[in-house]
Amino acid sequence: MTDTPLHLLTATAALARLRAGTLTVEAYAQALLHRIAQRDDAVRAWAYLDPEYVLEQARALDGVPADKRGPLHGLPIGVKDVIYTKDMPTQHNSPIYKGSFPKVDSASIMILRHAGALIFGKTATTEFAATTVGPKTRNPHSATVDRTPGGSSSGSGAAVGDAQVPLALATQTGGSTIRPASFNGIYALKPTWGAVSREGQKVYSLLLDTLGWYAREVADLALLADVLGVRDDEPSPGPTFRGLSGARFALCQSPVWSQAGPGTRAALSRAAAILRAHGATIDELTLPPSFAAVPEWHRVLLHTDGRATFLPEHRVAKGDLHGSLAVYVDTPGFSRREQLAAQDGIAALRPKFDELAASYDAVLTPSVVDEAPEGLGWTGEAAFCSALHVPVVNIPGFQGENGMPIGVSLVAPRFHDRRLLKVAEAVGRVFEAEGGWTRRLL
Amino acid sequence: MTDTPLHLLTATAALARLRAGTLTVEAYAQALLHRIAQRDDAVRAWAYLDPEYVLEQARALDGVPADKRGPLHGLPIGVKDVIYTKDMPTQHNSPIYKGSFPKVDSASIMILRHAGALIFGKTATTEFAATTVGPKTRNPHSATVDRTPGGSSSGSGAAVGDAQVPLALATQTGGSTIRPASFNGIYALKPTWGAVSREGQKVYSLLLDTLGWYAREVADLALLADVLGVRDDEPSPGPTFRGLSGARFALCQSPVWSQAGPGTRAALSRAAAILRAHGATIDELTLPPSFAAVPEWHRVLLHTDGRATFLPEHRVAKGDLHGSLAVYVDTPGFSRREQLAAQDGIAALRPKFDELAASYDAVLTPSVVDEAPEGLGWTGEAAFCSALHVPVVNIPGFQGENGMPIGVSLVAPRFHDRRLLKVAEAVGRVFEAEGGWTRRLL
Repeated sequence: MTDTPLHLLTATAALARLRAGTLTVEAYAQALLHRIAQRDDAVRAWAYLDPEYVLEQARALDGVPADKRGPLHGLPIGVKDVIYTKDMPTQHNSPIYKGSFPKVDSASIMILRHAGALIFGKTATTEFAATTVGPKTRNPHSATVDRTPGGSSSGSGAAVGDAQVPLALATQTGGSTIRPASFNGIYALKPTWGAVSREGQKVYSLLLDTLGWYAREVADLALLADVLGVRDDEPSPGPTFRGLSGARFALCQSPVWSQAGPGTRAALSRAAAILRAHGATIDELTLPPSFAAVPEWHRVLLHTDGRATFLPEHRVAKGDLHGSLAVYVDTPGFSRREQLAAQDGIAALRPKFDELAASYDAVLTPSVVDEAPEGLGWTGEAAFCSALHVPVVNIPGFQGENGMPIGVSLVAPRFHDRRLLKVAEAVGRVFEAEGGWTRRLL
Repeated sequence: MTDTPLHLLTATAALARLRAGTLTVEAYAQALLHRIAQRDDAVRAWAYLDPEYVLEQARALDGVPADKRGPLHGLPIGVKDVIYTKDMPTQHNSPIYKGSFPKVDSASIMILRHAGALIFGKTATTEFAATTVGPKTRNPHSATVDRTPGGSSSGSGAAVGDAQVPLALATQTGGSTIRPASFNGIYALKPTWGAVSREGQKVYSLLLDTLGWYAREVADLALLADVLGVRDDEPSPGPTFRGLSGARFALCQSPVWSQAGPGTRAALSRAAAILRAHGATIDELTLPPSFAAVPEWHRVLLHTDGRATFLPEHRVAKGDLHGSLAVYVDTPGFSRREQLAAQDGIAALRPKFDELAASYDAVLTPSVVDEAPEGLGWTGEAAFCSALHVPVVNIPGFQGENGMPIGVSLVAPRFHDRRLLKVAEAVGRVFEAEGGWTRRLL
């Protein structure tokens, strides 16, 4: 019997071995560091990584008595470099914050560290998680041509996609968590807005920013959801999911379907066919005309919130702020009246979407325009993002014209995150088995 | 001619002297430090103050060439100790953060420091600006009996009220900016939610938290509003204010008027009489019945947002977290369904309130239940707070049964902040002259 290489273990599998005492935190960390050493030239996922410090922390964790160990004891987690870590710099891929080292943990890191997680290093991001200009990171699934891993959570997506860590933290304001998940062939959860504290994570838009995370299986997403306190009402107000047979899905092309490329169109239609073949019904969900304004309102919020958010950096070092962000301050672009119309308009649609989605096990919708484009400079179109505060899971399993992974999104009403994860587990199993794309990691 | 003692200068007056070169930053800082040395035993406004470091910064500012000076050059500002300052600890009045020193500035401090402000020290707050348990701070206007300065911005309110600094930063989630302003007889601006970045300021509720500030005249509030980027649409969509004669005000008792004490009732009715005597008209504004739910929805949001916000501290050191905050995690109290009903319900009322207020020069409403109560343990009732995101200015000038100051609030639609400040300047002049309470500072 050939044992799975340690770096390919899912978080759940690794935890089982760590708990059983058949794997030490140090040995696991060593295996991941070895993987990174082999692959870093090709992938370049990390903004900050100190192998010596990782091993020192790992040995300290190995020294914790069994009865003092937390639920994530020894589990390595990559952290997007817009999230504060008290023991590592946080630089936002901005020259203004080069070497910046706020000696405080974000809310999420406080919780994860207390649960015993091994905070591994900081992953590459676009500037302030707010531009579409890619960092140096390469998509691990494209060996020959340079392709983007997506953004803004570029390094977290690539690191999990390449089996350099089992889990990584991301953030989303437009499509920053879901897009890299699709491009890197991994699972992502963007939970309901407000389910997890965003304290200590760089602000772009208070009404849109959400912490998310990546893994290579749904059970691993659920692990973090448990520890980070993501809870639905109990009993769940949605339909009880009893497997794909008899389940009801809605297919929602979203207001920006016209931009979807052939890969995404094929993935959605194959996804629907697979679910139907497993006994589920798929309804077409056409959103009422009032939803047509959401993409434009989302754009207004990015601009108007960016105006307040990036004012400090604009004042202090305008020349070091990317032009696509400086413009929010230089050219306000939208009036206060338009800003409020966007805020209020989206707010009024949130309960309406919840109601439309409430009777389904999940709503199926595109994750991205298409597979990862060539080049590292542009992290992809953010068209299919969501201002509706609903939980989203990216499910991999499909591929585009160049064999690059494409995922589809499952969506549920706000605070139906745990129910959505249950559905995603069953859906992920069949999409990965029958969707046509297979993760090839050595 | 007796010159005004330096500590009694308003920010605007001090800036004029600093600009004219008739006052050095060091001499001004010395005068304030002297005031603090005399008064600190009685008021105890500061959580962190290093006089040597203040003077060092002051001398550095004096060394900046005239053509390199910012618009707030040399102006001392107190900072509530829930706002990050890269050169001073930020401890949130919590044993969990004792000695905590995130080496990064909040967005507001970045802007103010770049404008040349002298970041003076950190002011006392209730724990995480989220409990009603007062810090050690005493109301400077009560010489004999211990009275609260209000909370949670206790130290900022008392320091400005006692002329220890001309300006100080506050925050508001319920009534944390407006209440201490009323209790300390000073002006406060709580700007429209989202007008100023709240990055680097401890989170309690993302949908409610707002940066605010204190001064002893409206012109000083406007100074900070200028620098912090508070802007209305131009031309302003509201009525043009041409002085009190002919102005139109609405008197809104708010849904919690039944709790108002005799001091606040008398202040509101005197306020209305003064405005009428100056030629303004006052309409009664009765909010539609749908607004009756706002106080309860506000309470739901504090509880449900607190559940996510204080989870990290609850996990790491529950014993060191105040019981009134730990309960949010221990006993969720409200369902997700109730949480969303509160979020969506308040969101739907915001544009409705804007519309109701739009035709008035300002809406007059209570700032507090009554004058500052006795004792330091309880910072006062947060009943008259606002979840509506509208700008609020506290205007001093009235007094309660024990001669303690009472203010009233002027409110305008969202993003009418600058128009509101213009109205507040005229209103403040007559309330201070005719309201019955006079600031007695030596």
